[in-house]
Amino acid sequence: MLILASASPRRKELLENLGYKFECLVADTDETLEKGIDGYNAVYELAYRKAKTVAAIKPDGVILASDTVVFCDGEILGKPNDRADAEKMLRRLSGKKHTVYTGVCVMDGEKCERLVSAAEVEFYPLDDALIEWYLDTNEPYDKAGAYGIQGKGSVLVKKIDGDYFTVMGLPCAEVFRALKKFQILPE
Amino acid sequence: MLILASASPRRKELLENLGYKFECLVADTDETLEKGIDGYNAVYELAYRKAKTVAAIKPDGVILASDTVVFCDGEILGKPNDRADAEKMLRRLSGKKHTVYTGVCVMDGEKCERLVSAAEVEFYPLDDALIEWYLDTNEPYDKAGAYGIQGKGSVLVKKIDGDYFTVMGLPCAEVFRALKKFQILPE
Repeated sequence: MLILASASPRRKELLENLGYKFECLVADTDETLEKGIDGYNAVYELAYRKAKTVAAIKPDGVILASDTVVFCDGEILGKPNDRADAEKMLRRLSGKKHTVYTGVCVMDGEKCERLVSAAEVEFYPLDDALIEWYLDTNEPYDKAGAYGIQGKGSVLVKKIDGDYFTVMGLPCAEVFRALKKFQILPE
Repeated sequence: MLILASASPRRKELLENLGYKFECLVADTDETLEKGIDGYNAVYELAYRKAKTVAAIKPDGVILASDTVVFCDGEILGKPNDRADAEKMLRRLSGKKHTVYTGVCVMDGEKCERLVSAAEVEFYPLDDALIEWYLDTNEPYDKAGAYGIQGKGSVLVKKIDGDYFTVMGLPCAEVFRALKKFQILPE
């Protein structure tokens, strides 16, 4: 049985759209990271920790875990705490490039596959009106970097170099190939 | 009033997700093209024709029309006629790059904005099992080039150079900026 170790509605939707049958199970994972860690290593580590925590509860399952961060000017941006924090993040991303890292870990009782997918995202310069409009949507508040690529946030983005689905939180084509190694196929 | 001159459920969904209020109206448009026309010029022309047809019916509206084609080895791929045709297209796209062109035309009684957005898509090599699996979904049959980027088709795609939404049929960020010139903003 495939188990998605994530509470993200985007990941759930993507995996459903691909045609997989799965359960969701989220377990409390220690997300403390060593100071100064970069985006790549952060998601590589966190996806693995999330998978391991759920594997301990469901030892017979095939666990798929994933973690996404926005990395800008050498710093990791997580989810904003509030509106002011979201505004600060959007102003920081405005008019320049940042990198989104999504780490994926698939494990069963025997083996473990880990990968990191990176995508470079370039933002349009955002004027005050556009930032206000976006802060008034419900999009920024549950997302790393205070934006989502798939809804209204799409108008903030000038260019993506890499996989759109990596930015959304689950690199579908790579996940498909990783799950295949565990004989897990969509229906 | 904004009017979307398209029957595509993907375009409708994207425009809704952006927060626009609009009506849909599709009118019969002559889609005959001169022989040997390339993808860029095909969508530039067809988006304009679609917009003009609808503008004649709704002269007070702001019309948004769009057209998408897949261009591979110098040839335009439209929607497949049947399963055999879809299979032929997928085998043709397998393991190589093609270009998706989406043309956009916005017009009201006074002015007209036209643009074409191009995205290069690279397919994984597709084996027989993957092609059969994809042909068994309902995805290939109403889409140019016999695939959709947003659902199960995402596992066929190795890389996109350009806008994901251009491949889906409506380059959101560019449409947002074009509509702004007509004082049409999302809510």
